Amino acid sequence: MDSMTLIAIASIITAGMTISIGGIGPALGEGRAVATALTSLAQQPDAAPTITRTLFVGLAMIESVAIYCFVVSMILIFANPFWNHAIAKAAGG
Amino acid sequence: MDSMTLIAIASIITAGMTISIGGIGPALGEGRAVATALTSLAQQPDAAPTITRTLFVGLAMIESVAIYCFVVSMILIFANPFWNHAIAKAAGG
Amino acid sequence: MDSMTLIAIASIITAGMTISIGGIGPALGEGRAVATALTSLAQQPDAAPTITRTLFVGLAMIESVAIYCFVVSMILIFANPFWNHAIAKAAGG
Amino acid sequence: MDSMTLIAIASIITAGMTISIGGIGPALGEGRAVATALTSLAQQPDAAPTITRTLFVGLAMIESVAIYCFVVSMILIFANPFWNHAIAKAAGG
Amino acid sequence: MDSMTLIAIASIITAGMTISIGGIGPALGEGRAVATALTSLAQQPDAAPTITRTLFVGLAMIESVAIYCFVVSMILIFANPFWNHAIAKAAGG
Amino acid sequence: MDSMTLIAIASIITAGMTISIGGIGPALGEGRAVATALTSLAQQPDAAPTITRTLFVGLAMIESVAIYCFVVSMILIFANPFWNHAIAKAAGG
Amino acid sequence: MDSMTLIAIASIITAGMTISIGGIGPALGEGRAVATALTSLAQQPDAAPTITRTLFVGLAMIESVAIYCFVVSMILIFANPFWNHAIAKAAGG
Amino acid sequence: MDSMTLIAIASIITAGMTISIGGIGPALGEGRAVATALTSLAQQPDAAPTITRTLFVGLAMIESVAIYCFVVSMILIFANPFWNHAIAKAAGG
Amino acid sequence: MDSMTLIAIASIITAGMTISIGGIGPALGEGRAVATALTSLAQQPDAAPTITRTLFVGLAMIESVAIYCFVVSMILIFANPFWNHAIAKAAGG
Amino acid sequence: MDSMTLIAIASIITAGMTISIGGIGPALGEGRAVATALTSLAQQPDAAPTITRTLFVGLAMIESVAIYCFVVSMILIFANPFWNHAIAKAAGG
Amino acid sequence: MDSMTLIAIASIITAGMTISIGGIGPALGEGRAVATALTSLAQQPDAAPTITRTLFVGLAMIESVAIYCFVVSMILIFANPFWNHAIAKAAGG
Amino acid sequence: MDSMTLIAIASIITAGMTISIGGIGPALGEGRAVATALTSLAQQPDAAPTITRTLFVGLAMIESVAIYCFVVSMILIFANPFWNHAIAKAAGG
Amino acid sequence: MDSMTLIAIASIITAGMTISIGGIGPALGEGRAVATALTSLAQQPDAAPTITRTLFVGLAMIESVAIYCFVVSMILIFANPFWNHAIAKAAGG
Amino acid sequence: MDSMTLIAIASIITAGMTISIGGIGPALGEGRAVATALTSLAQQPDAAPTITRTLFVGLAMIESVAIYCFVVSMILIFANPFWNHAIAKAAGG
Repeated sequence: MDSMTLIAIASIITAGMTISIGGIGPALGEGRAVATALTSLAQQPDAAPTITRTLFVGLAMIESVAIYCFVVSMILIFANPFWNHAIAKAAGG
Repeated sequence: MDSMTLIAIASIITAGMTISIGGIGPALGEGRAVATALTSLAQQPDAAPTITRTLFVGLAMIESVAIYCFVVSMILIFANPFWNHAIAKAAGG
Repeated sequence: MDSMTLIAIASIITAGMTISIGGIGPALGEGRAVATALTSLAQQPDAAPTITRTLFVGLAMIESVAIYCFVVSMILIFANPFWNHAIAKAAGG
Repeated sequence: MDSMTLIAIASIITAGMTISIGGIGPALGEGRAVATALTSLAQQPDAAPTITRTLFVGLAMIESVAIYCFVVSMILIFANPFWNHAIAKAAGG
Repeated sequence: MDSMTLIAIASIITAGMTISIGGIGPALGEGRAVATALTSLAQQPDAAPTITRTLFVGLAMIESVAIYCFVVSMILIFANPFWNHAIAKAAGG
Repeated sequence: MDSMTLIAIASIITAGMTISIGGIGPALGEGRAVATALTSLAQQPDAAPTITRTLFVGLAMIESVAIYCFVVSMILIFANPFWNHAIAKAAGG
Repeated sequence: MDSMTLIAIASIITAGMTISIGGIGPALGEGRAVATALTSLAQQPDAAPTITRTLFVGLAMIESVAIYCFVVSMILIFANPFWNHAIAKAAGG
Repeated sequence: MDSMTLIAIASIITAGMTISIGGIGPALGEGRAVATALTSLAQQPDAAPTITRTLFVGLAMIESVAIYCFVVSMILIFANPFWNHAIAKAAGG
Repeated sequence: MDSMTLIAIASIITAGMTISIGGIGPALGEGRAVATALTSLAQQPDAAPTITRTLFVGLAMIESVAIYCFVVSMILIFANPFWNHAIAKAAGG
Repeated sequence: MDSMTLIAIASIITAGMTISIGGIGPALGEGRAVATALTSLAQQPDAAPTITRTLFVGLAMIESVAIYCFVVSMILIFANPFWNHAIAKAAGG
Repeated sequence: MDSMTLIAIASIITAGMTISIGGIGPALGEGRAVATALTSLAQQPDAAPTITRTLFVGLAMIESVAIYCFVVSMILIFANPFWNHAIAKAAGG
Repeated sequence: MDSMTLIAIASIITAGMTISIGGIGPALGEGRAVATALTSLAQQPDAAPTITRTLFVGLAMIESVAIYCFVVSMILIFANPFWNHAIAKAAGG
Repeated sequence: MDSMTLIAIASIITAGMTISIGGIGPALGEGRAVATALTSLAQQPDAAPTITRTLFVGLAMIESVAIYCFVVSMILIFANPFWNHAIAKAAGG
Repeated sequence: MDSMTLIAIASIITAGMTISIGGIGPALGEGRAVATALTSLAQQPDAAPTITRTLFVGLAMIESVAIYCFVVSMILIFANPFWNHAIAKAAGG
């Protein structure tokens, strides 16, 4: 059973680190994008539709990186193939 | 019982680190976004509705990263599947 | 009893690290937001109500990250499910 | 008695690290806020009441992060539930 | 069976670290690209089509780096040749 | 007696690290505040009373963080509850 | 068989680290290149063909570094000479 | 006697690290304060008395952090309560 | 055979680290060079031939550093003299 | 005699590290102060006496931090109370 | 034979690290030099010959540092005196 | 004799680290001071005597930090009291 | 023979690290010097002889640091007194 | 002989690290000084003699730090008192 514990611990630590480290980049990148969007809106209010549309496309691209990390984190907690294999073996062995 | 202790320790440490490390990025990103919003408001008070709306959408996107981290942190403390499995096995074994 | 000690130590260290590391981001972000609010106020005193309102909403969003960390830190000290489980088992076992 | 020593050492180290690491962010953030307040005062002396009021609200928000760290640090030294539990057990056991 | 556990742990940790560390660069790079796109749009609204097209090509190039990391991460979780070889050997041996 | 030595060593190291690491932030923050105060004084000598008063309030807020660290450091050296408990037990045991 | 496990683990970890660390530089470099391309387009729309052509040549040069890393990463997972040698020896020995 | 050696070593290392790490912040902060004082003097020679007075108050506040570190460092070398307790016990035991 | 495994592991890890760490510098350097080339083209379209020629010579110089790293990485994987010597000895011994 | 060797080693390493780490801050701070003094002199040659006087007071304050470190370093080499105690005990024991 | 393996491993790791770490500086330095060359060409096209000549001399100086690293790296792989000595001894002994 | 070797090794490593780490600060500080001196000379050639005199006083102050480090380094190599004590004891014992 | 292997390994690793770490500074410094030389040439083509001469003297000074590192690196590989002493002893002993 | 090997290894590693780490500061500082010298020459060609003279004095001061490191490095390789003492003892003992 020791090997199951090790897999569980590795999954827990990795799940947390993945989303926390992987969230730094997107948060900073989105902060920068939003910040310039606001500056641009104040400078050229007439271009608001174009700016807003481009901002949302850009935020979606950046957020996708955070989503990747969140997906990997959730897979490791709730759909971990290595953990499932270990449970299956423990149940059947 | 040793394996339960190890899972508990890993969960405790990871839960804390996830939200604390994962909170640095969103806090800095939101600080930057709010800061430019204020600069833009001072520069172009007439565009206040557009700026405020864009700011709130942006803050929501950035805050979502912190929410991901908080969710993972809460899951690890209160709904940890590895811990539940260990308790179930300890109770039934 | 060794396993209880280990859980206690992990909880103590994580509780402290969570709030101290997690507080760096919000403090810097709020410092930046307040700083630009003051610059904006000096530049456009007439927009004071809008600026102040936006600043408070923004500070609340940023402070929420610090609150998350403080909540996790308090949970680990005073409502730690892993510690409670260990005490219950020690009392009943 | 070894487990009590370990809890004591963890509490001592964490108490010190919490306030020292957690104090870096607020100190820098407040330094930045105060600095811009002074620049703004020099630039727009007529807005002194608004600037001062906003500065104090902001400093209070930032200082709150340092207070959280100080509270956790004091709890770990003088009202540590894990230490109290260990003393109670040592006294009663 | 110990060797399978080690491969599983290495795969879990590497999968998480790959996407989280590898996502920092693309997120920051895209944030910068989107930010300047918005500045450029505000400065020269007439060039919107050229700017938007160049932005999307650039974002695709940058996102490709994150995709590489995500692909490697998924391969390590769901199509890991080393893990498959270990399972095959364990089943046949 | 070994456990007393360990507590003593942890207290010594933590006391020194607390004030030295915790002093970096306040020193830099105060340096920044004083620097802008001087710039502001040179730019607007007539506002000297307001600037000086705001500077002193701000310095007091920032210095408070250093004071927290110094207090924790002194408590750990001269009023350490864990050390006192160990001495009491050694004397009475 | 132990030596095969070690080679597998080293390959897994190195494959992930190579593309994740090696992707930071290209992502940031491309972000910078795209950003200035957009600024230049907004500043001199007439030079769009020259700017776009130079941008694509530059992006190709920078992307080549990420491709190198991805190639090394894929070689380590799917065409690893050390792993093949170990399998051949295990099969024939 | 081993425990005395350990306390001595911890005191020596901590004393040196406290003043050396703790001196970085004040030195940089004072350098910044003095630098802006000189700029301000060159810009507004008539305000020399006010600038000099504010500079000295500020330097005193910043230097106080270095003094705290020096005091803790001296206490650890020449008035270390843990060392004195160990000597007393060694002499009387 | 243990010594062969060690050489293999060292070669795998070094090959990946060489190209990933060694690629950061060239990618950033090329990003900077391309970025200024674009700025210069927008500023002085008439000098396009000279700028493009100088850019390509510069990119070749910078890329050469990445090529060095890639060459060393490939040598370590496919033409490693230490690995060949070990295989020869294992075959002949 | 082992304990004397350990104290000697700790003293040697700490003495060197104290002055080398502790000298970084003062050297950078003084460099900054001298640099602005020169800029100020070039900008306002008439204020040379005031600038020079303020510069020297400031340099003295900053140098004091380096002096603290040098004093602690010399104490640890030539007037180390812990070393003297060990020698006295070795001579008398 | 163990000592030969150790020398081989040290040579492999050092060869890779030398060129990868040593290539960061030259790549960044050359990127900067090329970047300013392009800016200068755009600003003063008439001085192209002087600028180009100076750029090439400078690039040669900077590249020489990367060449040093590549030479040391190649020496360690293909003309390593320590490895040759070990082989000679193993062959003759 | 083991204890003499340890003291020798600690002295060697510390001597080298002291001057190398301790030399970073002064070199950077002097570089900054010299740089501004040259800018000031170009801006105000008439003030050359005052600027040169102030520069030399400042360089002497900064160089003193490097001298401290060099002195400690030389003491540790050629006049090390701990080493002398060990030699004396080895000769007399 | 073990001691010879250790000396060989230390020499290999140190030789590579010396030139790779020691080359970062000169490469960056020369990059900066060349960059400003080009800016200066573009700004003041008439001063080309003076600028070029000063640049070459400066590059020689900076390159000398890289040469020092290369010399130490070559000495450690091809004229290592410690290695020669070990070989002489192994041959004569 | 073991103690001689340890001293040799410590000397080799320290010699290399001393000059490589200690060379970063001077190289960067000289790069900065040379860079501003070139800017100043382009801005004020008439002050060339004063600028050149001051530059050379400054470069000599900065280079002295690198010389200190090189001297310590050479002493450790060719005139190491600890190594000489060990050889003398080995020869005479």
